[in-house]
Amino acid sequence: MDMLSSDTIVAISTPHGMGGIAVIRISGPDALPLSLRHLSVDSLTERKATYCRFDDIDDIVAIFYTKGYTGEPTVELSCHGSLYVQQAMLQALVDDGARLAEPGEFTRRAFLNGRLNLSQAEAVADLIDSVTPVQHHLAVSQLRGGYARTLKDLRQQLLDLTSLLELELDFSQEDVEFADRTQLRKILSSLHFQLSTLLSSFRMGNALKRGIPVAIVGRPNAGKSSLLNALLGDDRAIVSDIPGTTRDTIEETLTLDGITFRFIDTAGLRHSDDTVEALGINRTRKAIADAYLVLYVHDSTTPWQEPDLDLTDKHVIVVQNKSDLSQHALANPQLSIINISAKTGTGLPELRAAMLAAVRGEMPDESNVLLSNVRHYEAMQRVQQALDNVRCGLEDGTPADLVAVDLRDALYHLGTITGEVTSDEVLGNIFGRFCVGK
Amino acid sequence: MDMLSSDTIVAISTPHGMGGIAVIRISGPDALPLSLRHLSVDSLTERKATYCRFDDIDDIVAIFYTKGYTGEPTVELSCHGSLYVQQAMLQALVDDGARLAEPGEFTRRAFLNGRLNLSQAEAVADLIDSVTPVQHHLAVSQLRGGYARTLKDLRQQLLDLTSLLELELDFSQEDVEFADRTQLRKILSSLHFQLSTLLSSFRMGNALKRGIPVAIVGRPNAGKSSLLNALLGDDRAIVSDIPGTTRDTIEETLTLDGITFRFIDTAGLRHSDDTVEALGINRTRKAIADAYLVLYVHDSTTPWQEPDLDLTDKHVIVVQNKSDLSQHALANPQLSIINISAKTGTGLPELRAAMLAAVRGEMPDESNVLLSNVRHYEAMQRVQQALDNVRCGLEDGTPADLVAVDLRDALYHLGTITGEVTSDEVLGNIFGRFCVGK
Repeated sequence: MDMLSSDTIVAISTPHGMGGIAVIRISGPDALPLSLRHLSVDSLTERKATYCRFDDIDDIVAIFYTKGYTGEPTVELSCHGSLYVQQAMLQALVDDGARLAEPGEFTRRAFLNGRLNLSQAEAVADLIDSVTPVQHHLAVSQLRGGYARTLKDLRQQLLDLTSLLELELDFSQEDVEFADRTQLRKILSSLHFQLSTLLSSFRMGNALKRGIPVAIVGRPNAGKSSLLNALLGDDRAIVSDIPGTTRDTIEETLTLDGITFRFIDTAGLRHSDDTVEALGINRTRKAIADAYLVLYVHDSTTPWQEPDLDLTDKHVIVVQNKSDLSQHALANPQLSIINISAKTGTGLPELRAAMLAAVRGEMPDESNVLLSNVRHYEAMQRVQQALDNVRCGLEDGTPADLVAVDLRDALYHLGTITGEVTSDEVLGNIFGRFCVGK
Repeated sequence: MDMLSSDTIVAISTPHGMGGIAVIRISGPDALPLSLRHLSVDSLTERKATYCRFDDIDDIVAIFYTKGYTGEPTVELSCHGSLYVQQAMLQALVDDGARLAEPGEFTRRAFLNGRLNLSQAEAVADLIDSVTPVQHHLAVSQLRGGYARTLKDLRQQLLDLTSLLELELDFSQEDVEFADRTQLRKILSSLHFQLSTLLSSFRMGNALKRGIPVAIVGRPNAGKSSLLNALLGDDRAIVSDIPGTTRDTIEETLTLDGITFRFIDTAGLRHSDDTVEALGINRTRKAIADAYLVLYVHDSTTPWQEPDLDLTDKHVIVVQNKSDLSQHALANPQLSIINISAKTGTGLPELRAAMLAAVRGEMPDESNVLLSNVRHYEAMQRVQQALDNVRCGLEDGTPADLVAVDLRDALYHLGTITGEVTSDEVLGNIFGRFCVGK
């Protein structure tokens, strides 16, 4: 399985740039001898921080692990965080035969060497990407918490089902239908419920991970762009300061109390107050379809108009703007209405609270497992589909050996999540999104 | 002396941003107990990398040093390089009583605890800032090499002088001029020579450290901005990628073979080809005065005109642009002339080689000590001035006790370089330019 580890890889594992210190990580069979050729010491004791010199380049601290993060011999070199020093040490090791690690290659090796399963490896990437407490919680839960246990439980139940079915297969020669199909149906029904719960948690899990999608809509000149600007306020600078955010795909985001809101399709709002006219009604409808929360902006100096938009299943907050000049303020107990003035800032705290409340109302408590990974969601859908086929098969009296095929299919798709079943292509996709050095 | 270390400080020591791993450093009397309150282990063994959990935040590696970089108890925590994890751990430690370290505070403590002298501490900042091999070499030489030895030698010679003079003072009651003023004068003369050499190395040392200052001058439309653009070419992207470069003060720089050239006062060149008219002749003269190297651009399709500029003591390269259309190409063995076409790129390699040669011609070999720090330069000038006073005093027959005052002055100023003599203000200036976390 482990073809990759025949060579020794190296990378700068700390964030790119200049700082007090940086760490260079070397992993593979030659990690120790290759490092020692550059160090002013003859040997490194396992796990002991050793102060020494690296060539003529820097005074560093070296640590050797017989089995490091990757499960292989690993050396970590802490040097001064100078751009020159980092590059020069990296170059010296590459010149000496180490290979520059690809993105995520250390974690890929950890997976291949059985130190992590695949969903845990993905959680490492999510953990590194995490900026908010909620994203962090989702990643940690996937790395070591309830999520891993849930997957293990599901697998065990599928294996139990298989055993029961195989018992039946053993007796099939005698043409006797095995007595205990009730138990089989019971497990199936329980599995169906668990999978449905997990699948339906994905909308919230994914929204929490990527940011709750919010659409700001309303008639021309209702004050949509002013609202966006007022909401973002001071927070913008913080958001745009985060390195690693690809400029091309940046969306306006706002983090309130640890929960990130992501304003979708607001590019037009920045330059024109008129989404409907500028972007077209179709684009607005698309934004609403993608949204979890819709802020419907109404200019309270104009008469109320019922929005001609499909807001089914959406959390809608009616934002009555220009409340300082209000003449037509709407009061309707059926709607969540917040009066604000984007200009003076009145009502913004209430609006933020209402946005948070809309999310918190649907958020499961800490103990619940949230599905937040698209790949897992798709695999889980296939597991559910395969189990539906099993259920139909049992009801239709399909022979047990055919039912067993669907059951194996369910196990297969569950296995793709944790990586018991995988392919180079899947691994390439997963580890390609890591940063180099992890 | 060491009032600062009564508290425990903490900072992220790795570069700012997201990466595979990040390191949080805690230093001070409570570093160990404070860390242990958050770790899943009861104790840390000196210098042993210990895998453990930090609160519910992350799985980390902790290392304890009884005397770390600062000379104090120090704990280093390697966590996942997530923005959230880094901030959350930092916050947990601050909530628990650690204080956020100020820029350079770890190195300041290392200095106050006698682990580094002041010029070495400054070299740490230079080392971290170093981007090119030459900058790295200057910093390393100041940190551990010939520079420190030179300072020590100078100090010893000054002490020897003092001893000789004190011997004389001891006998002064007897009104006898001590015989061996020859030896005194010999040491003085040798010191004068050494200091002159060091002082004159500053121009090159500082230029190498900050980038060799280059002025591009020439008549309107000679092609100055095209030349700048052609020279920078692909290199620009690399330069602007360097984090930590303050945008306000960014200058166009070009690194050739490890040596950085810094184009001074080229702001106008970017938008107009006419420095002389746009910026005024005074500004051009100022640029030339600050320059080490002057590129005098001549449009070879126009007649040669002797530049009306003071180029005394400057390395001047005459760049004959538009050589592809050349009609008036100048040939003059007195001048270093390069024919180029900024448009086609012809001659650019030759120009780059000539620029490098102009610098290399004056560069001392590796074994020579270069003065590259402005603060040291100024202090060294004062040492020289004080020794000149000593010399005059001896020649004028000034009483030995008055001469001794000047000698103490010389020792004092030399002491400010290594930090034997210092003030809070000086320390504030020096450590203020460090990054946080070092």
